[in-house]
Amino acid sequence: MSLSDEVRIALDGKWRHVREQSRVELAELDLAFDHDLGLDDARERTFRQLKELVPTGVPAAGFKTEHGGGGDPGMAVTGIEMLAQFDMSLMVKAGVQWGLFGGAIENLGTERHHALIPQIIDLDLVGCYAMTETGHGSNVQALETTATFDPSTGEFVIETPTRSARKDYIGNAAKHASVATVFAQLITRGESHGVHCFLVPIRDEHGQPLPGVIISDNGHKGGLRGVDNGRLEFHGVRIPRENLLNRYGNVDEGGAYSSPIENTNRRFFTMLGTLIRGRVSVGGSALAASEVALSIAGRYALKRRQFGPDDTPEVLLADYRMHQRRLLPLIAKGYAYRFAQNQQVARMHRLQSNAEPDAGQQRELEGRAAGLKAMMTWHASRAIQESREMCGGAGYLAENRIALLRDDVDVFTTFEGDNHVLLQLVAKEMLTAYAQEVGGLDPVGMVRFAASTVTDIVRERTAASQLIQRLIDARPGGDEHDLLDRGTQLELFEDREQHVIETAARRLQRAASADADEAFRIFNNAQDHVIRAGRVHIERIVLEAFTAGIARCEDEEAADLLRDVCSLYALTTIEDDLAWFMGHNRLSDQRAKVITAEINTLLDKLRPHLLTLIEGFGIPEHTLDAEILRD
Amino acid sequence: MSLSDEVRIALDGKWRHVREQSRVELAELDLAFDHDLGLDDARERTFRQLKELVPTGVPAAGFKTEHGGGGDPGMAVTGIEMLAQFDMSLMVKAGVQWGLFGGAIENLGTERHHALIPQIIDLDLVGCYAMTETGHGSNVQALETTATFDPSTGEFVIETPTRSARKDYIGNAAKHASVATVFAQLITRGESHGVHCFLVPIRDEHGQPLPGVIISDNGHKGGLRGVDNGRLEFHGVRIPRENLLNRYGNVDEGGAYSSPIENTNRRFFTMLGTLIRGRVSVGGSALAASEVALSIAGRYALKRRQFGPDDTPEVLLADYRMHQRRLLPLIAKGYAYRFAQNQQVARMHRLQSNAEPDAGQQRELEGRAAGLKAMMTWHASRAIQESREMCGGAGYLAENRIALLRDDVDVFTTFEGDNHVLLQLVAKEMLTAYAQEVGGLDPVGMVRFAASTVTDIVRERTAASQLIQRLIDARPGGDEHDLLDRGTQLELFEDREQHVIETAARRLQRAASADADEAFRIFNNAQDHVIRAGRVHIERIVLEAFTAGIARCEDEEAADLLRDVCSLYALTTIEDDLAWFMGHNRLSDQRAKVITAEINTLLDKLRPHLLTLIEGFGIPEHTLDAEILRD
Repeated sequence: MSLSDEVRIALDGKWRHVREQSRVELAELDLAFDHDLGLDDARERTFRQLKELVPTGVPAAGFKTEHGGGGDPGMAVTGIEMLAQFDMSLMVKAGVQWGLFGGAIENLGTERHHALIPQIIDLDLVGCYAMTETGHGSNVQALETTATFDPSTGEFVIETPTRSARKDYIGNAAKHASVATVFAQLITRGESHGVHCFLVPIRDEHGQPLPGVIISDNGHKGGLRGVDNGRLEFHGVRIPRENLLNRYGNVDEGGAYSSPIENTNRRFFTMLGTLIRGRVSVGGSALAASEVALSIAGRYALKRRQFGPDDTPEVLLADYRMHQRRLLPLIAKGYAYRFAQNQQVARMHRLQSNAEPDAGQQRELEGRAAGLKAMMTWHASRAIQESREMCGGAGYLAENRIALLRDDVDVFTTFEGDNHVLLQLVAKEMLTAYAQEVGGLDPVGMVRFAASTVTDIVRERTAASQLIQRLIDARPGGDEHDLLDRGTQLELFEDREQHVIETAARRLQRAASADADEAFRIFNNAQDHVIRAGRVHIERIVLEAFTAGIARCEDEEAADLLRDVCSLYALTTIEDDLAWFMGHNRLSDQRAKVITAEINTLLDKLRPHLLTLIEGFGIPEHTLDAEILRD
Repeated sequence: MSLSDEVRIALDGKWRHVREQSRVELAELDLAFDHDLGLDDARERTFRQLKELVPTGVPAAGFKTEHGGGGDPGMAVTGIEMLAQFDMSLMVKAGVQWGLFGGAIENLGTERHHALIPQIIDLDLVGCYAMTETGHGSNVQALETTATFDPSTGEFVIETPTRSARKDYIGNAAKHASVATVFAQLITRGESHGVHCFLVPIRDEHGQPLPGVIISDNGHKGGLRGVDNGRLEFHGVRIPRENLLNRYGNVDEGGAYSSPIENTNRRFFTMLGTLIRGRVSVGGSALAASEVALSIAGRYALKRRQFGPDDTPEVLLADYRMHQRRLLPLIAKGYAYRFAQNQQVARMHRLQSNAEPDAGQQRELEGRAAGLKAMMTWHASRAIQESREMCGGAGYLAENRIALLRDDVDVFTTFEGDNHVLLQLVAKEMLTAYAQEVGGLDPVGMVRFAASTVTDIVRERTAASQLIQRLIDARPGGDEHDLLDRGTQLELFEDREQHVIETAARRLQRAASADADEAFRIFNNAQDHVIRAGRVHIERIVLEAFTAGIARCEDEEAADLLRDVCSLYALTTIEDDLAWFMGHNRLSDQRAKVITAEINTLLDKLRPHLLTLIEGFGIPEHTLDAEILRD
């Protein structure tokens, strides 16, 4: 087997068979985007393609076998990621139907709702996921839509009280969905019990909006032309009591509310927690799209020549130092996130395949999924943008695909939660062991309960922890530590995280006894520090995942190459935050200056392997579908 | 007059009357982009709008009065920038017709060509600017298209010898242009004299390609749907000898070549230098587009609420520290570049209004235009992207305009020269006083002539130099220098530039006696360092321009506000490069840590003026044309 095959096998991870299957099956479908289609035609085309996915088994994989599914959550996420390499609109529409809509029914519903799942898999029932409102995206606990129980008829009445309460940007809503899972404040006997999810029919069999339902179209967007996003308003829309997805909260015929989870906050976050697959898929799909863009730009750098010494052929882009500086660290970061994503998918699979998942592990996965989603979607946006620029004017032409990828991936940084809010959430998970019980997503709750147990939480590793500890322990001592030593790198990352989180906690703890306004002020002054804590935490997690991934790689030559790629990730990450490491005496001025030289040496070392690294992403050249690579 | 009026006056600069006129006239045209239009319709619409611009006088302004123009280059660039605030496609199409195509005729042609200018202004003659080839964008000296003189007929024969020699991405080529200014290697009597420009008819009166001309369409792009970009190939296309734009090189009837400039390199760069207005317009227009995006996101931050302490209304986005951190430094950078752009437009106007412009000033302007174009277009891409994310899902909807601005502005980072290549060019201008004479754009030429006169070049200031020197001299001494003191900031920027360029020069000088391969290797190893030199140079220029702009502001309150904005620009720029300042002992660890606190204090101070700062950009709210700001 070739070196690039070995590298690809390491990157493909546990669901390699799904990737291999998708590489063949999806290439056979006609998924290339047609820019000449109008909005309606583009949406219909994507919808037709959605139907072609049913026989692949990927749509069924995400559901439990007892509900008629395939019982393979890892396959479901991997399959969605693979779609993103071909068509992001199709990926989003699949994610909405089977991941979000179907996922809400499976995870928040009970037996009577689960009976719908076979129809959902087969697209006989097409739905949408109506959570976000015009006025509330990240703060979903404060949604304004209400579902008020009317005991006289045994129905819930769904109502959109204000303009800002409109359900907005809802995928599948503008055209194809006949029902919606609507998140709304559940009110019964005059009392609100917080946000719950309801199954609300929105269209009749002719596709016309049902009485009381007002549907409008979000129209053109920055990308994702195949997705029909729309707005929903409800005015006195009545649904049977049974349409409450009642796993975590029920209303009986008389209007009495009951729930297995008493605390409203905890109940809400438990419900959200079951929907984690959305974030995992969004991050992984953005990453997959960036792999396509980097593959195109990387292959172009091996073809295109520009300037050079007189009387010799012009020089390949890939041979310029600046071009290597732009391209290779992004590839290294792509590799790093791919290992982290594979690890998180495996963990999610394990938890979701377990009837009684461990609450602590579930919470940790939620924090990690939030943080990885933020970091991976930003990485993807940046990598695709840089890929565009690395291809010059050609990168701007639709025929070379990168511009389309950029358009499509853009929204990923804000959907499934704004990235800054998500990193704040990560920090919060680190700052308080009691987040689920006591805090909401709101900053004051967070500040109030910033716990003193920080140290333990940071030190807690969840994967290959013995290996990591062994590497750290084995690092060379003294001032002249070797920056290429993995143990040294791991220790620098871990130590930085520890310091950032401890100092953040210290700033926030002053708020414990303050009133709400003052507590908010203290939080707000430290907000950039808090978000930074989330970021450096994820950077540590990612380096550990890369390290663990290399340890699993069985081919020595591939492992050697991956070690250099990992060091490039580690050193460029340190370089991006060099002022911190210097200012906190983690690196002397002298060592700091060496970093740039070490990075350049790694670039020289990796340059001959550029094609191997691109092939490692596992995207066959013919499926890249970029004109500049033909000829 | 209100504070925001005073700020706007300061930012509007010398051609305020043009801005005021455009604000009214352009708002009256129906320029809002219609996303439902197909490609053909979008292009026809933009072309119709182009015709509506003729009576505004902006198209004529760029041409000399003796050629039938308005003789006001400053007005021409300002008018183009204002177009960018309304419709980037229209801006580009106007720039192609009157700036690039018309500019080539005026600057490279002689009397017989100048007679065409009135038709060009009135759009009776529509042209395109055929410089870039598929295989050569930044390295235009190596274009492959040939124009071979045939003395037997007195004609030039235009030929596209290879696929990579196709003229590519040429605006106006796919549909509307009837002639092209084609850049090609001039060959006569078997000898090549380098790249010259030729007037080549490409379509007949029915819009059909002329014999030997093959035109194809670049089709869909990442944005700029109103611009018809296309490819041109020439096979044995014959044009009269008189169609050579012969100001800098002529061929007589017998085929003898003559030129007022003997050195081929110098001739070529002199020709390019006359076309500087393109780069100045591109940078200014990208900046203008970013002002629109920041105005939308800034106003939204003053409307939209999210999270907050219990039992109180949610908190405005603008009141979150992280949001201020994202928004205000971009506004400050926008202000800084606006002052720098106004300064460069005024200088360009002065030089181009002078019959005998000073060669040194012309060269300096070229370097600065290249560098500012790079830095402003990157800033614009980043600011627009961040504005999109600051508006969440709403930012992704076409109805809120930011996504469209992002699509349109994207290509600006690579057109009129790839930004990295341009920064390299800036550095080169700094490194050698002889660039025009001896070096080409190629790296080896650059290395060879890295001069020892660096010190003088860096110290040379061209605007308000006495004021700047006075501020630097008056800075408080000692270790505990005040980071808010302008003299201290100016000195930090200047000192950094000096050090970076000196060390770059030292690395490159080793190449002076090396052979071509070794010289290239030395250059390549230092390429990131060299590009960095260009970047820090421009950052210094921009800080000086901001300082000079404040000195010209007559309203004390406005000047006070601008001083804080300028400090925010200076400190965030220092923060971005903090590791350098620390590692080179320009800032102690202690001072470095204060920077973040000082920035946060500035954010608190500027927060109450956010609306004023947005209004300072001078874009009336109703012309922002974003749905999220209505209601």
